[in-house]
Amino acid sequence: MFKRLCIIGVGLIGGSIARAARQQGLCDEIVAFGGVAQLPHLQAAQALGVIDHFYTDPAAALEQADCVIIATPVGAVQSVFQQIAPFWNPHTVYSDACSTKASVVAAAEAVFGRVPSNFVAAHPIAGAERSGVAAANAELFNHRRLIITPLADTDNNALERITQFWIAIGSSVSLMSVEHHDTVLAATSHLPHILAFALVGLLGHKDEQKEIFKYAAGGFKDFSRIASSDPTMWLDICLANQQEIIPLLQQFRAELAKVEQMLADNQAQPLFETFTYARNARQRFLDQLED
Amino acid sequence: MFKRLCIIGVGLIGGSIARAARQQGLCDEIVAFGGVAQLPHLQAAQALGVIDHFYTDPAAALEQADCVIIATPVGAVQSVFQQIAPFWNPHTVYSDACSTKASVVAAAEAVFGRVPSNFVAAHPIAGAERSGVAAANAELFNHRRLIITPLADTDNNALERITQFWIAIGSSVSLMSVEHHDTVLAATSHLPHILAFALVGLLGHKDEQKEIFKYAAGGFKDFSRIASSDPTMWLDICLANQQEIIPLLQQFRAELAKVEQMLADNQAQPLFETFTYARNARQRFLDQLED
Repeated sequence: MFKRLCIIGVGLIGGSIARAARQQGLCDEIVAFGGVAQLPHLQAAQALGVIDHFYTDPAAALEQADCVIIATPVGAVQSVFQQIAPFWNPHTVYSDACSTKASVVAAAEAVFGRVPSNFVAAHPIAGAERSGVAAANAELFNHRRLIITPLADTDNNALERITQFWIAIGSSVSLMSVEHHDTVLAATSHLPHILAFALVGLLGHKDEQKEIFKYAAGGFKDFSRIASSDPTMWLDICLANQQEIIPLLQQFRAELAKVEQMLADNQAQPLFETFTYARNARQRFLDQLED
Repeated sequence: MFKRLCIIGVGLIGGSIARAARQQGLCDEIVAFGGVAQLPHLQAAQALGVIDHFYTDPAAALEQADCVIIATPVGAVQSVFQQIAPFWNPHTVYSDACSTKASVVAAAEAVFGRVPSNFVAAHPIAGAERSGVAAANAELFNHRRLIITPLADTDNNALERITQFWIAIGSSVSLMSVEHHDTVLAATSHLPHILAFALVGLLGHKDEQKEIFKYAAGGFKDFSRIASSDPTMWLDICLANQQEIIPLLQQFRAELAKVEQMLADNQAQPLFETFTYARNARQRFLDQLED
Protein backbone atom coordinates (compact mmCIF):
# COMPACT_ATOMS: atom_id res chain seq x y z
CA MET A 1 0.00 0.00 0.00
CA PHE A 2 2.84 2.38 0.95
CA LYS A 3 6.59 2.27 0.50
CA ARG A 4 7.61 4.24 3.55
CA LEU A 5 5.29 4.96 6.46
CA CYS A 6 6.54 7.72 8.75
CA ILE A 7 5.07 7.91 12.25
CA ILE A 8 5.46 11.09 14.25
CA GLY A 9 4.87 10.33 17.94
CA VAL A 10 5.58 6.68 18.69
CA GLY A 11 3.55 6.14 21.85
CA LEU A 12 0.70 3.68 22.39
CA ILE A 13 -1.27 4.90 19.36
CA GLY A 14 1.60 5.59 16.95
CA GLY A 15 3.30 2.36 17.96
CA SER A 16 0.12 0.36 17.50
CA ILE A 17 -0.43 1.88 14.06
CA ALA A 18 3.11 0.78 13.13
CA ARG A 19 2.64 -2.73 14.51
CA ALA A 20 -0.72 -3.15 12.76
CA ALA A 21 0.64 -1.81 9.46
CA ARG A 22 3.54 -4.23 9.62
CA GLN A 23 1.36 -7.18 10.58
CA GLN A 24 -0.96 -6.46 7.66
CA GLY A 25 1.92 -5.88 5.23
CA LEU A 26 0.76 -2.35 4.42
CA CYS A 27 4.20 -0.82 3.88
CA ASP A 28 7.76 -1.80 3.03
CA GLU A 29 9.42 0.31 5.69
CA ILE A 30 8.35 2.09 8.88
CA VAL A 31 10.28 5.06 10.19
CA ALA A 32 9.69 7.59 12.93
CA PHE A 33 10.50 11.24 13.35
CA GLY A 34 10.89 12.99 16.68
CA GLY A 35 12.84 15.67 18.53
CA VAL A 36 15.89 14.99 20.63
CA ALA A 37 13.66 14.88 23.74
CA GLN A 38 11.91 11.89 22.17
CA LEU A 39 15.11 9.86 21.76
CA PRO A 40 14.38 7.37 24.58
CA HIS A 41 10.95 6.61 23.05
CA LEU A 42 12.36 6.36 19.53
CA GLN A 43 15.14 4.04 20.69
CA ALA A 44 12.66 1.88 22.58
CA ALA A 45 10.42 1.70 19.50
CA GLN A 46 13.31 0.55 17.37
CA ALA A 47 14.54 -1.95 19.98
CA LEU A 48 11.04 -3.42 20.14
CA GLY A 49 10.92 -3.77 16.37
CA VAL A 50 7.97 -1.39 16.15
CA ILE A 51 9.85 0.82 13.68
CA ASP A 52 12.78 0.12 11.35
CA HIS A 53 14.59 3.45 11.76
CA PHE A 54 14.13 6.78 13.44
CA TYR A 55 15.34 10.27 12.64
CA THR A 56 15.56 13.53 14.54
CA ASP A 57 16.03 15.29 11.20
CA PRO A 58 12.66 15.82 9.47
CA ALA A 59 14.21 15.96 6.00
CA ALA A 60 15.71 12.48 6.41
CA ALA A 61 12.55 11.04 7.99
CA LEU A 62 10.17 12.40 5.39
CA GLU A 63 12.30 11.65 2.35
CA GLN A 64 10.41 9.11 0.26
CA ALA A 65 7.71 8.75 2.91
CA ASP A 66 4.45 8.31 0.99
CA CYS A 67 2.37 8.17 4.18
CA VAL A 68 2.91 10.30 7.28
CA ILE A 69 0.79 9.92 10.43
CA ILE A 70 0.97 12.36 13.34
CA ALA A 71 0.21 10.56 16.60
CA THR A 72 1.52 13.09 19.10
CA PRO A 73 -0.57 14.68 21.87
CA VAL A 74 -2.91 17.21 20.28
CA GLY A 75 -1.05 20.13 21.87
CA ALA A 76 2.10 19.28 19.88
CA VAL A 77 0.48 19.16 16.44
CA GLN A 78 1.11 22.76 15.43
CA SER A 79 4.80 22.45 16.23
CA VAL A 80 4.93 19.21 14.22
CA PHE A 81 3.32 20.95 11.24
CA GLN A 82 5.96 23.70 11.50
CA GLN A 83 8.78 21.18 11.47
CA ILE A 84 7.51 19.16 8.53
CA ALA A 85 6.09 22.04 6.45
CA PRO A 86 9.34 22.70 4.52
CA PHE A 87 9.33 19.10 3.29
CA TRP A 88 5.61 18.82 2.51
CA ASN A 89 5.13 16.53 -0.49
CA PRO A 90 1.98 16.85 -2.61
CA HIS A 91 2.13 13.15 -3.52
CA THR A 92 2.29 11.95 0.08
CA VAL A 93 -0.80 11.19 2.20
CA TYR A 94 -0.83 12.82 5.64
CA SER A 95 -3.11 11.90 8.52
CA ASP A 96 -3.24 12.14 12.31
CA ALA A 97 -4.73 10.33 15.30
CA CYS A 98 -5.70 13.21 17.59
CA SER A 99 -8.77 13.15 19.84
CA THR A 100 -9.95 16.62 18.81
CA LYS A 101 -10.26 17.82 15.23
CA ALA A 102 -11.07 21.55 15.09
CA SER A 103 -7.81 22.20 16.93
CA VAL A 104 -5.86 20.17 14.35
CA VAL A 105 -7.52 22.11 11.52
CA ALA A 106 -6.65 25.37 13.29
CA ALA A 107 -3.04 24.24 13.73
CA ALA A 108 -2.76 23.43 10.01
CA GLU A 109 -4.30 26.78 9.07
CA ALA A 110 -1.88 28.59 11.37
CA VAL A 111 1.11 26.96 9.70
CA PHE A 112 -0.01 26.54 6.06
CA GLY A 113 -2.63 29.29 5.72
CA ARG A 114 -5.11 26.54 4.83
CA VAL A 115 -5.36 22.82 5.49
CA PRO A 116 -3.29 21.07 2.80
CA SER A 117 -5.63 19.02 0.61
CA ASN A 118 -3.57 15.86 1.14
CA PHE A 119 -3.89 16.04 4.93
CA VAL A 120 -6.83 13.86 6.02
CA ALA A 121 -7.63 14.23 9.73
CA ALA A 122 -8.62 11.05 11.57
CA HIS A 123 -9.40 9.88 15.09
CA PRO A 124 -9.13 6.20 16.01
CA ILE A 125 -11.40 5.76 19.06
CA ALA A 126 -9.25 3.28 20.91
CA GLY A 127 -9.16 3.19 24.70
CA ALA A 128 -5.83 4.22 26.09
CA GLU A 129 -5.62 3.71 29.82
CA ARG A 130 -2.10 2.46 29.27
CA SER A 131 0.38 4.58 27.38
CA GLY A 132 3.80 4.36 25.79
CA VAL A 133 5.24 2.34 22.94
CA ALA A 134 5.82 -0.72 25.14
CA ALA A 135 2.03 -1.15 25.32
CA ALA A 136 1.62 -0.86 21.53
CA ASN A 137 -0.14 -3.78 19.88
CA ALA A 138 -1.30 -4.63 16.39
CA GLU A 139 -4.86 -5.41 17.53
CA LEU A 140 -5.58 -2.04 19.17
CA PHE A 141 -7.81 -0.82 16.34
CA ASN A 142 -9.55 -4.10 15.59
CA HIS A 143 -13.31 -3.53 15.41
CA ARG A 144 -12.84 -0.06 16.89
CA ARG A 145 -14.48 2.95 15.34
CA LEU A 146 -12.32 5.48 13.55
CA ILE A 147 -13.67 8.84 12.47
CA ILE A 148 -12.32 10.68 9.44
CA THR A 149 -13.24 14.36 9.12
CA PRO A 150 -12.65 15.39 5.50
CA LEU A 151 -12.97 19.03 4.44
CA ALA A 152 -14.64 20.37 1.29
CA ASP A 153 -11.34 20.53 -0.58
CA THR A 154 -9.75 17.34 0.80
CA ASP A 155 -8.10 15.45 -2.03
CA ASN A 156 -10.23 12.45 -2.96
CA ASN A 157 -7.29 10.26 -3.77
CA ALA A 158 -5.61 10.98 -0.42
CA LEU A 159 -8.94 10.37 1.36
CA GLU A 160 -9.41 7.05 -0.37
CA ARG A 161 -5.87 5.82 0.25
CA ILE A 162 -5.84 6.67 3.95
CA THR A 163 -9.34 5.23 4.42
CA GLN A 164 -8.12 1.94 2.94
CA PHE A 165 -5.14 2.06 5.27
CA TRP A 166 -7.26 2.61 8.40
CA ILE A 167 -9.67 -0.15 7.34
CA ALA A 168 -6.75 -2.49 6.68
CA ILE A 169 -5.53 -2.12 10.28
CA GLY A 170 -8.96 -3.22 11.50
CA SER A 171 -10.88 0.03 12.07
CA SER A 172 -14.53 0.56 11.34
CA VAL A 173 -14.39 3.92 9.51
CA SER A 174 -17.06 6.66 9.65
CA LEU A 175 -16.91 10.04 7.95
CA MET A 176 -18.28 13.16 9.60
CA SER A 177 -17.65 16.90 9.81
CA VAL A 178 -15.01 18.34 12.10
CA GLU A 179 -17.71 20.07 14.16
CA HIS A 180 -19.84 16.96 14.57
CA HIS A 181 -16.81 14.95 15.63
CA ASP A 182 -15.87 17.45 18.32
CA THR A 183 -19.47 17.69 19.57
CA VAL A 184 -19.89 13.93 19.80
CA LEU A 185 -16.56 13.29 21.48
CA ALA A 186 -17.06 16.14 23.96
CA ALA A 187 -20.25 14.36 25.09
CA THR A 188 -19.17 10.72 25.15
CA SER A 189 -15.54 11.11 26.14
CA HIS A 190 -14.34 14.55 27.24
CA LEU A 191 -17.23 15.36 29.62
CA PRO A 192 -17.11 11.91 31.32
CA HIS A 193 -13.36 12.28 31.87
CA ILE A 194 -13.82 15.71 33.47
CA LEU A 195 -16.62 14.37 35.70
CA ALA A 196 -14.44 11.45 36.79
CA PHE A 197 -11.47 13.71 37.54
CA ALA A 198 -13.71 16.18 39.43
CA LEU A 199 -15.47 13.48 41.46
CA VAL A 200 -12.35 11.56 42.42
CA GLY A 201 -10.69 14.87 43.29
CA LEU A 202 -13.59 15.90 45.54
CA LEU A 203 -13.67 12.49 47.23
CA GLY A 204 -9.87 12.39 47.49
CA HIS A 205 -9.93 15.52 49.65
CA LYS A 206 -12.68 14.00 51.81
CA ASP A 207 -10.67 10.80 52.07
CA GLU A 208 -7.74 12.78 53.47
CA GLN A 209 -9.99 14.03 56.29
CA LYS A 210 -11.84 10.81 56.99
CA GLU A 211 -11.49 7.44 55.33
CA ILE A 212 -14.07 7.02 52.64
CA PHE A 213 -12.30 5.11 49.84
CA LYS A 214 -12.02 2.16 52.21
CA TYR A 215 -15.75 1.63 51.94
CA ALA A 216 -16.12 2.15 48.19
CA ALA A 217 -17.37 -0.84 46.22
CA GLY A 218 -16.96 -2.25 42.73
CA GLY A 219 -19.31 0.29 41.17
CA PHE A 220 -16.98 3.09 42.22
CA LYS A 221 -13.98 1.29 40.77
CA ASP A 222 -15.56 1.17 37.31
CA PHE A 223 -17.02 4.66 37.56
CA SER A 224 -13.69 6.20 38.52
CA ARG A 225 -11.50 4.21 36.10
CA ILE A 226 -11.08 7.05 33.58
CA ALA A 227 -9.79 9.31 36.39
CA SER A 228 -6.60 7.25 36.10
CA SER A 229 -6.05 8.61 32.58
CA ASP A 230 -2.94 10.62 31.73
CA PRO A 231 -3.37 14.21 33.05
CA THR A 232 -1.09 15.72 30.39
CA MET A 233 -3.01 14.16 27.54
CA TRP A 234 -6.34 15.21 29.04
CA LEU A 235 -5.23 18.76 29.75
CA ASP A 236 -4.36 18.96 26.05
CA ILE A 237 -7.70 17.53 24.92
CA CYS A 238 -9.76 19.73 27.24
CA LEU A 239 -8.02 22.91 26.16
CA ALA A 240 -8.23 21.87 22.50
CA ASN A 241 -11.99 21.29 22.67
CA GLN A 242 -13.05 23.79 25.33
CA GLN A 243 -15.63 25.41 23.05
CA GLU A 244 -17.62 22.18 22.93
CA ILE A 245 -16.92 21.11 26.50
CA ILE A 246 -17.91 24.29 28.34
CA PRO A 247 -21.56 24.35 27.15
CA LEU A 248 -21.84 20.65 28.02
CA LEU A 249 -20.53 21.27 31.52
CA GLN A 250 -23.15 24.00 31.89
CA GLN A 251 -25.91 21.66 30.70
CA PHE A 252 -24.73 18.93 33.01
CA ARG A 253 -24.64 21.25 36.02
CA ALA A 254 -28.18 22.35 35.18
CA GLU A 255 -29.22 18.69 34.97
CA LEU A 256 -27.72 18.03 38.39
CA ALA A 257 -29.45 21.08 39.83
CA LYS A 258 -32.76 19.65 38.58
CA VAL A 259 -32.10 16.30 40.26
CA GLU A 260 -31.10 18.12 43.43
CA GLN A 261 -34.38 20.04 43.41
CA MET A 262 -36.39 16.86 42.87
CA LEU A 263 -34.59 15.29 45.83
CA ALA A 264 -35.12 18.33 48.05
CA ASP A 265 -38.82 18.36 47.15
CA ASN A 266 -39.25 14.59 47.53
CA GLN A 267 -40.51 14.37 43.96
CA ALA A 268 -40.44 10.59 43.74
CA GLN A 269 -42.12 10.20 40.35
CA PRO A 270 -39.92 12.62 38.35
CA LEU A 271 -36.81 11.15 39.99
CA PHE A 272 -37.93 7.65 39.14
CA GLU A 273 -38.56 8.71 35.55
CA THR A 274 -35.12 10.35 35.33
CA PHE A 275 -33.37 7.20 36.57
CA THR A 276 -35.50 4.96 34.36
CA TYR A 277 -34.85 7.06 31.26
CA ALA A 278 -31.12 6.84 31.96
CA ARG A 279 -31.20 3.09 32.46
CA ASN A 280 -33.06 2.63 29.19
CA ALA A 281 -30.68 4.98 27.38
CA ARG A 282 -27.71 2.94 28.61
CA GLN A 283 -29.39 -0.21 27.36
CA ARG A 284 -29.70 1.45 23.94
CA PHE A 285 -25.97 2.18 24.07
CA LEU A 286 -25.18 -1.44 25.02
CA ASP A 287 -27.40 -2.79 22.24
CA GLN A 288 -25.44 -0.72 19.71
CA LEU A 289 -22.13 -2.00 21.07
CA GLU A 290 -23.25 -5.54 20.39
CA ASP A 291 -24.26 -4.82 16.81
CA MET B 1 -25.31 -20.42 65.58
CA PHE B 2 -29.09 -19.97 65.16
CA LYS B 3 -31.99 -22.38 65.15
CA ARG B 4 -34.30 -20.52 62.78
CA LEU B 5 -33.12 -17.71 60.51
CA CYS B 6 -35.99 -15.64 59.11
CA ILE B 7 -35.25 -13.52 56.02
CA ILE B 8 -37.63 -10.73 55.12
CA GLY B 9 -37.12 -9.79 51.47
CA VAL B 10 -35.64 -12.70 49.50
CA GLY B 11 -34.01 -10.92 46.58
CA LEU B 12 -30.34 -10.93 45.59
CA ILE B 13 -29.14 -9.83 49.04
CA GLY B 14 -31.61 -11.75 51.23
CA GLY B 15 -31.22 -14.85 49.07
CA SER B 16 -27.43 -14.63 49.20
CA ILE B 17 -27.52 -14.28 52.99
CA ALA B 18 -29.64 -17.45 53.13
CA ARG B 19 -27.37 -19.37 50.77
CA ALA B 20 -24.23 -18.31 52.64
CA ALA B 21 -25.75 -19.13 56.03
CA ARG B 22 -26.71 -22.58 54.80
CA GLN B 23 -23.34 -23.22 53.20
CA GLN B 24 -21.57 -22.26 56.43
CA GLY B 25 -23.99 -24.27 58.59
CA LEU B 26 -25.02 -21.22 60.61
CA CYS B 27 -28.63 -22.23 61.23
CA ASP B 28 -30.84 -25.30 61.34
CA GLU B 29 -33.69 -23.83 59.33
CA ILE B 30 -34.18 -20.87 57.01
CA VAL B 31 -37.62 -19.35 56.52
CA ALA B 32 -38.88 -16.24 54.80
CA PHE B 33 -41.71 -13.84 55.47
CA GLY B 34 -43.38 -11.69 52.84
CA GLY B 35 -46.70 -10.24 51.75
CA VAL B 36 -49.00 -11.85 49.21
CA ALA B 37 -47.47 -9.64 46.52
CA GLN B 38 -44.14 -11.36 47.23
CA LEU B 39 -45.52 -14.87 46.64
CA PRO B 40 -43.77 -15.41 43.27
CA HIS B 41 -40.40 -14.49 44.82
CA LEU B 42 -41.03 -16.61 47.91
CA GLN B 43 -42.04 -19.60 45.80
CA ALA B 44 -38.99 -19.17 43.59
CA ALA B 45 -36.74 -18.97 46.67
CA GLN B 46 -38.19 -22.20 48.01
CA ALA B 47 -38.02 -23.96 44.64
CA LEU B 48 -34.33 -22.97 44.37
CA GLY B 49 -33.66 -24.36 47.84
CA VAL B 50 -32.62 -20.94 49.10
CA ILE B 51 -35.18 -21.17 51.94
CA ASP B 52 -36.89 -24.13 53.59
CA HIS B 53 -40.32 -22.56 54.09
CA PHE B 54 -42.07 -19.26 53.59
CA TYR B 55 -44.97 -17.59 55.32
CA THR B 56 -47.25 -14.70 54.54
CA ASP B 57 -48.29 -14.70 58.20
CA PRO B 58 -45.72 -12.91 60.36
CA ALA B 59 -46.68 -14.81 63.51
CA ALA B 60 -45.90 -18.14 61.86
CA ALA B 61 -42.70 -16.89 60.24
CA LEU B 62 -41.30 -15.31 63.38
CA GLU B 63 -42.26 -18.08 65.77
CA GLN B 64 -39.04 -19.54 67.15
CA ALA B 65 -36.90 -17.41 64.83
CA ASP B 66 -33.82 -16.45 66.83
CA CYS B 67 -32.39 -14.35 64.01
CA VAL B 68 -34.39 -12.07 61.71
CA ILE B 69 -32.79 -10.12 58.84
CA ILE B 70 -34.64 -7.47 56.86
CA ALA B 71 -33.33 -7.32 53.29
CA THR B 72 -36.13 -5.40 51.59
CA PRO B 73 -35.67 -2.13 49.71
CA VAL B 74 -35.06 0.61 52.26
CA GLY B 75 -38.42 2.25 51.50
CA ALA B 76 -40.26 -0.86 52.77
CA VAL B 77 -38.53 -1.11 56.14
CA GLN B 78 -41.03 0.91 58.17
CA SER B 79 -43.91 -1.21 56.92
CA VAL B 80 -41.93 -4.37 57.77
CA PHE B 81 -41.33 -3.07 61.30
CA GLN B 82 -45.07 -2.46 61.66
CA GLN B 83 -45.89 -6.00 60.58
CA ILE B 84 -43.39 -7.70 62.84
CA ALA B 85 -43.69 -5.39 65.87
CA PRO B 86 -46.49 -7.39 67.56
CA PHE B 87 -44.27 -10.47 67.56
CA TRP B 88 -41.02 -8.79 68.62
CA ASN B 89 -38.99 -11.16 70.76
CA PRO B 90 -36.42 -9.77 73.22
CA HIS B 91 -34.29 -12.93 72.85
CA THR B 92 -34.10 -12.77 69.06
CA VAL B 93 -31.37 -10.88 67.15
CA TYR B 94 -32.66 -8.52 64.44
CA SER B 95 -30.59 -6.96 61.67
CA ASP B 96 -31.01 -5.51 58.19
CA ALA B 97 -29.08 -5.05 54.96
CA CYS B 98 -30.21 -1.61 53.82
CA SER B 99 -27.91 0.84 52.01
CA THR B 100 -28.87 3.80 54.23
CA LYS B 101 -28.94 3.72 58.01
CA ALA B 102 -30.43 6.96 59.42
CA SER B 103 -33.64 6.14 57.55
CA VAL B 104 -33.77 2.67 59.11
CA VAL B 105 -33.26 4.18 62.57
CA ALA B 106 -36.05 6.68 61.84
CA ALA B 107 -38.36 3.87 60.67
CA ALA B 108 -37.72 1.93 63.89
CA GLU B 109 -38.32 5.03 66.01
CA ALA B 110 -41.57 5.71 64.17
CA VAL B 111 -42.87 2.22 64.92
CA PHE B 112 -41.33 1.39 68.31
CA GLY B 113 -40.78 4.85 69.78
CA ARG B 114 -37.09 3.97 70.02
CA VAL B 115 -34.80 1.53 68.24
CA PRO B 116 -35.17 -1.84 70.00
CA SER B 117 -31.85 -2.70 71.66
CA ASN B 118 -31.74 -6.09 69.93
CA PHE B 119 -31.98 -4.56 66.46
CA VAL B 120 -28.45 -4.15 65.05
CA ALA B 121 -28.41 -2.22 61.75
CA ALA B 122 -25.95 -3.44 59.11
CA HIS B 123 -25.02 -2.76 55.50
CA PRO B 124 -23.20 -5.37 53.44
CA ILE B 125 -21.44 -3.41 50.67
CA ALA B 126 -21.91 -5.91 47.90
CA GLY B 127 -22.36 -4.82 44.32
CA ALA B 128 -25.79 -5.56 43.00
CA GLU B 129 -26.05 -4.87 39.29
CA ARG B 130 -28.10 -8.02 39.04
CA SER B 131 -31.14 -8.47 41.22
CA GLY B 132 -33.62 -11.15 42.27
CA VAL B 133 -33.29 -14.40 44.17
CA ALA B 134 -32.22 -16.33 41.07
CA ALA B 135 -28.92 -14.40 41.16
CA ALA B 136 -28.36 -15.15 44.86
CA ASN B 137 -25.08 -16.82 45.67
CA ALA B 138 -23.29 -17.91 48.83
CA GLU B 139 -20.08 -16.07 47.87
CA LEU B 140 -21.62 -12.60 47.46
CA PHE B 141 -20.22 -11.29 50.75
CA ASN B 142 -16.84 -12.98 50.59
CA HIS B 143 -14.11 -10.42 51.35
CA ARG B 144 -16.67 -7.62 51.01
CA ARG B 145 -16.92 -4.91 53.60
CA LEU B 146 -19.95 -4.84 55.88
CA ILE B 147 -20.68 -1.88 58.10
CA ILE B 148 -22.52 -2.26 61.41
CA THR B 149 -23.89 0.92 62.97
CA PRO B 150 -24.59 0.21 66.65
CA LEU B 151 -26.34 2.78 68.83
CA ALA B 152 -25.43 3.74 72.41
CA ASP B 153 -27.99 1.34 73.86
CA THR B 154 -27.57 -1.53 71.39
CA ASP B 155 -27.51 -4.80 73.29
CA ASN B 156 -23.94 -6.10 73.44
CA ASN B 157 -24.97 -9.71 73.18
CA ALA B 158 -27.09 -9.06 70.09
CA LEU B 159 -24.24 -7.03 68.55
CA GLU B 160 -21.75 -9.80 69.18
CA ARG B 161 -23.95 -12.57 67.83
CA ILE B 162 -24.86 -10.77 64.62
CA THR B 163 -21.25 -9.67 64.08
CA GLN B 164 -20.16 -13.30 64.30
CA PHE B 165 -22.89 -14.19 61.83
CA TRP B 166 -21.82 -11.57 59.27
CA ILE B 167 -18.17 -12.58 59.66
CA ALA B 168 -19.10 -16.23 59.22
CA ILE B 169 -20.69 -15.52 55.82
CA GLY B 170 -17.42 -13.97 54.66
CA SER B 171 -17.80 -10.24 55.36
CA SER B 172 -15.07 -7.97 56.62
CA VAL B 173 -16.94 -6.10 59.38
CA SER B 174 -16.38 -2.47 60.41
CA LEU B 175 -18.29 -0.55 63.08
CA MET B 176 -19.17 3.11 62.66
CA SER B 177 -21.86 5.60 63.60
CA VAL B 178 -25.08 5.88 61.61
CA GLU B 179 -24.13 9.41 60.53
CA HIS B 180 -20.63 8.44 59.39
CA HIS B 181 -22.02 5.52 57.41
CA ASP B 182 -24.51 7.70 55.58
CA THR B 183 -21.87 10.37 54.88
CA VAL B 184 -19.37 7.87 53.50
CA LEU B 185 -21.87 6.00 51.35
CA ALA B 186 -23.37 9.23 49.99
CA ALA B 187 -19.90 10.11 48.71
CA THR B 188 -18.66 6.79 47.36
CA SER B 189 -21.92 5.28 46.17
CA HIS B 190 -24.99 7.52 46.11
CA LEU B 191 -23.38 10.57 44.45
CA PRO B 192 -21.66 8.47 41.72
CA HIS B 193 -24.96 6.75 40.92
CA ILE B 194 -26.75 10.10 40.57
CA LEU B 195 -23.95 11.43 38.34
CA ALA B 196 -24.14 8.35 36.15
CA PHE B 197 -27.93 8.56 35.85
CA ALA B 198 -27.76 12.31 35.11
CA LEU B 199 -24.98 11.97 32.53
CA VAL B 200 -26.49 9.03 30.67
CA GLY B 201 -29.84 10.83 30.75
CA LEU B 202 -28.35 13.99 29.26
CA LEU B 203 -26.50 12.04 26.57
CA GLY B 204 -29.52 9.86 25.89
CA HIS B 205 -31.53 12.92 24.89
CA LYS B 206 -28.66 14.09 22.66
CA ASP B 207 -28.46 10.60 21.16
CA GLU B 208 -32.12 10.83 20.18
CA GLN B 209 -31.34 13.98 18.17
CA LYS B 210 -28.04 12.87 16.67
CA GLU B 211 -26.19 9.61 17.10
CA ILE B 212 -23.58 9.92 19.77
CA PHE B 213 -23.60 6.56 21.59
CA LYS B 214 -22.38 4.96 18.39
CA TYR B 215 -19.02 6.64 18.87
CA ALA B 216 -18.63 6.04 22.60
CA ALA B 217 -15.67 3.91 23.62
CA GLY B 218 -14.80 1.49 26.41
CA GLY B 219 -14.22 4.24 28.96
CA PHE B 220 -17.83 5.32 28.63
CA LYS B 221 -19.05 1.77 29.09
CA ASP B 222 -17.34 1.49 32.46
CA PHE B 223 -18.22 5.02 33.51
CA SER B 224 -21.89 4.54 32.75
CA ARG B 225 -22.25 1.00 34.14
CA ILE B 226 -23.97 2.08 37.38
CA ALA B 227 -26.62 3.92 35.34
CA SER B 228 -27.96 0.42 34.60
CA SER B 229 -28.83 -0.01 38.28
CA ASP B 230 -32.40 -0.58 39.40
CA PRO B 231 -34.28 2.78 39.36
CA THR B 232 -36.73 1.71 42.11
CA MET B 233 -33.96 0.76 44.48
CA TRP B 234 -32.03 3.96 43.76
CA LEU B 235 -35.06 6.18 44.12
CA ASP B 236 -35.49 4.64 47.57
CA ILE B 237 -31.86 5.14 48.54
CA CYS B 238 -31.70 8.73 47.28
CA LEU B 239 -34.84 9.75 49.13
CA ALA B 240 -33.68 7.93 52.26
CA ASN B 241 -30.32 9.72 52.32
CA GLN B 242 -31.22 13.06 50.74
CA GLN B 243 -29.81 15.03 53.67
CA GLU B 244 -26.32 13.74 52.96
CA ILE B 245 -26.65 13.68 49.19
CA ILE B 246 -27.88 17.23 48.61
CA PRO B 247 -24.86 19.01 50.14
CA LEU B 248 -22.58 16.69 48.16
CA LEU B 249 -24.36 17.52 44.92
CA GLN B 250 -23.86 21.20 45.74
CA GLN B 251 -20.16 20.67 46.39
CA PHE B 252 -19.78 18.69 43.21
CA ARG B 253 -21.52 21.34 41.11
CA ALA B 254 -19.19 23.95 42.64
CA GLU B 255 -16.22 21.75 41.76
CA LEU B 256 -17.42 21.49 38.17
CA ALA B 257 -17.94 25.24 38.00
CA LYS B 258 -14.31 25.69 39.06
CA VAL B 259 -13.08 23.34 36.33
CA GLU B 260 -15.29 25.15 33.82
CA GLN B 261 -13.75 28.48 34.81
CA MET B 262 -10.22 27.08 34.52
CA LEU B 263 -11.07 25.83 31.04
CA ALA B 264 -12.66 29.11 29.98
CA ASP B 265 -9.59 31.01 31.23
CA ASN B 266 -7.09 28.55 29.70
CA GLN B 267 -5.56 27.97 33.13
CA ALA B 268 -3.41 25.03 32.12
CA GLN B 269 -1.46 24.61 35.35
CA PRO B 270 -4.43 24.51 37.79
CA LEU B 271 -6.26 22.14 35.43
CA PHE B 272 -3.23 19.89 35.21
CA GLU B 273 -2.95 19.89 39.01
CA THR B 274 -6.65 19.06 39.37
CA PHE B 275 -6.36 16.09 37.01
CA THR B 276 -3.11 14.93 38.59
CA TYR B 277 -4.52 15.12 42.13
CA ALA B 278 -7.48 13.01 40.99
CA ARG B 279 -5.29 10.43 39.31
CA ASN B 280 -3.17 10.11 42.45
CA ALA B 281 -6.28 9.89 44.64
CA ARG B 282 -7.62 7.04 42.53
CA GLN B 283 -4.29 5.26 42.84
CA ARG B 284 -4.64 5.58 46.65
CA PHE B 285 -8.09 4.00 46.35
CA LEU B 286 -6.73 1.15 44.22
CA ASP B 287 -3.85 0.53 46.62
CA GLN B 288 -6.37 0.13 49.47
CA LEU B 289 -8.44 -2.31 47.44
CA GLU B 290 -5.40 -4.53 47.06
CA ASP B 291 -4.65 -4.54 50.78
